[in-house]
Amino acid sequence: MVKIVGIAGSLRSTSYSQQALSVVIERVRALGAEVELLDLRELNLPFCDGSDEYPDYPDVEKLRKAVLEADGIILVTPEYHGSLSGVLKNALDLMSFDHFSGKVTGLMSVLGGQSNSNALNDMRTITRWIHAWTIPEQVAIGQVWKAFDQDGNLQDENLSKRIDTFAQSMVENTQKLRGLPQRAMVAS
Amino acid sequence: MVKIVGIAGSLRSTSYSQQALSVVIERVRALGAEVELLDLRELNLPFCDGSDEYPDYPDVEKLRKAVLEADGIILVTPEYHGSLSGVLKNALDLMSFDHFSGKVTGLMSVLGGQSNSNALNDMRTITRWIHAWTIPEQVAIGQVWKAFDQDGNLQDENLSKRIDTFAQSMVENTQKLRGLPQRAMVAS
Amino acid sequence: MVKIVGIAGSLRSTSYSQQALSVVIERVRALGAEVELLDLRELNLPFCDGSDEYPDYPDVEKLRKAVLEADGIILVTPEYHGSLSGVLKNALDLMSFDHFSGKVTGLMSVLGGQSNSNALNDMRTITRWIHAWTIPEQVAIGQVWKAFDQDGNLQDENLSKRIDTFAQSMVENTQKLRGLPQRAMVAS
Amino acid sequence: MVKIVGIAGSLRSTSYSQQALSVVIERVRALGAEVELLDLRELNLPFCDGSDEYPDYPDVEKLRKAVLEADGIILVTPEYHGSLSGVLKNALDLMSFDHFSGKVTGLMSVLGGQSNSNALNDMRTITRWIHAWTIPEQVAIGQVWKAFDQDGNLQDENLSKRIDTFAQSMVENTQKLRGLPQRAMVAS
Repeated sequence: MVKIVGIAGSLRSTSYSQQALSVVIERVRALGAEVELLDLRELNLPFCDGSDEYPDYPDVEKLRKAVLEADGIILVTPEYHGSLSGVLKNALDLMSFDHFSGKVTGLMSVLGGQSNSNALNDMRTITRWIHAWTIPEQVAIGQVWKAFDQDGNLQDENLSKRIDTFAQSMVENTQKLRGLPQRAMVAS
Repeated sequence: MVKIVGIAGSLRSTSYSQQALSVVIERVRALGAEVELLDLRELNLPFCDGSDEYPDYPDVEKLRKAVLEADGIILVTPEYHGSLSGVLKNALDLMSFDHFSGKVTGLMSVLGGQSNSNALNDMRTITRWIHAWTIPEQVAIGQVWKAFDQDGNLQDENLSKRIDTFAQSMVENTQKLRGLPQRAMVAS
Repeated sequence: MVKIVGIAGSLRSTSYSQQALSVVIERVRALGAEVELLDLRELNLPFCDGSDEYPDYPDVEKLRKAVLEADGIILVTPEYHGSLSGVLKNALDLMSFDHFSGKVTGLMSVLGGQSNSNALNDMRTITRWIHAWTIPEQVAIGQVWKAFDQDGNLQDENLSKRIDTFAQSMVENTQKLRGLPQRAMVAS
Repeated sequence: MVKIVGIAGSLRSTSYSQQALSVVIERVRALGAEVELLDLRELNLPFCDGSDEYPDYPDVEKLRKAVLEADGIILVTPEYHGSLSGVLKNALDLMSFDHFSGKVTGLMSVLGGQSNSNALNDMRTITRWIHAWTIPEQVAIGQVWKAFDQDGNLQDENLSKRIDTFAQSMVENTQKLRGLPQRAMVAS
């Protein structure tokens, strides 16, 4: 079974990145993947100072182990200042190509204003730099403050379909690239 | 007198980014600018959680005030994973276009391997996003572990000249763009 | 008097890039600049083959001369495949930092779909590579097919104001960076 | 059998991009792929003017057909002004996601000066925009004027090994992503 880990790069208590990640990770699960959510708000991570080990921060090892054991990783970031959040970049800085090499990543972003691809572009370069694949499908959710209803469901049908396509590509192509058996999938 | 603040995005105890910043900031000072070094290793900054204020972290205000009062800002980052460090991006995330709008920035990076412009490219997009100017001159120092001698001086004469040009552009054009009087400058 | 040249990177007979360029160049003119429009549909340019000279194509020299004599250059591109058009990039490839060094550029893009900054980001890296300044203000016009009325005027008031700001920054800052006298400007 | 098409974005008579493409395409062939070289110096292509069809330029259809029938495409560009060549971008502009969707691309660049990833980064965004996969392996050949011997062989052993890895990834992963049978491969 393909194993997918999700990480969202926002520490807001009411984070839209986390909401978007929850939506996509549920769809990935419905397609038969084993999933794990890593909530950076609950991990106690240090700023990367270039060290290999962070003995005072056992959550560094927890983060690394989860990614190391994953076949695929979904990264969701708020777009801050035309790029990914420093919080998410720092979490990635705490890892290396040891953890990502040959893995498959999928990228999403959320924005308060109109949609844009800056953070996604930067992340695509970064994931390549750590030797990961990145699926061609990507989703930037603009004006994210009106994207979800009270139950955390997406209000826009077209956006919801794009996330279905994203999830399906993530599972199917991770299986292909990782040489895992491909089970018949039922769309969520 | 033009006021230039320098920030380096590495927390290593023996940081090459900090060494590179020291070199350039001294040259900017020699050209008549008032300078201030903000060492992120000495500031106690939180991860950005999207809040406007961080009352438990007075150094946020110290960082913001220094940038707000500056005419120009020099940013030096290690290139991690094909982009700027999460540490530096997080420091920028704690500020906004309120602090950078109309200011002049200069960008440098250091790399352990061969030179590349990934971090500089991402930073150039980011500084624009917060409404700052960025000087065309930029410096990426590859194989930085052999760039400095024991006294922190640059070993390569060509690189040293490029940093002279960078410093001169930084001071001269900040004066022009900020409408400050241009005093005769003596090259360092 | 500051001299601004405009180049649009589309060869369509009914080009929105050309329409957008006409709008902004008129505003730049109204602010007191001397302007020149270079219409790539009317220039007979070759594909760049790395030669220094193209004796069979006198319009190469015409293009180069216009840019060489300009203080600032406004570039407008359609966003094709997440970047600037090959047509515009080829025109830039026919020139070098000899023509752009120390000049001021302003960047705009037009898109059939929703707004995005991919082409603008790539152009900002390119203009830096040829040693030009680029103003922080930039404009991406999404769904450009509904942006203009029959007379070529912008339908959206906010967009029109952003282009005013762009034009004003272009003229004012080109004067500053080029050391030209700054005359009192009247907003268009 | 997996089918790979190669396109180099330089029109120089003695093009290093074409030399680099020849090297990699031979290695891809040695790994069992069917290969085709499209030499843009021999195709008579127009500037893209946004038309769907170019009846006066039958080579447009030849280019499109070759890419349409390919499983994978290797793109090699000279890095001009910090991006891919206008010549190559224009060739891509003449095609669309109809031709690239679901295909696998591999990216290389050549530079006269020191190595850099600007053109590769821009191409990675572009290939995604037309819905293609891009392999994580990429090669930028700096100081390319000393890279080849008189017979067109690579002089640097490490570079040669990196191109082996590139070719192997290209063939192997195109088979996986395209659902083609994977034959035992013998390294070239």
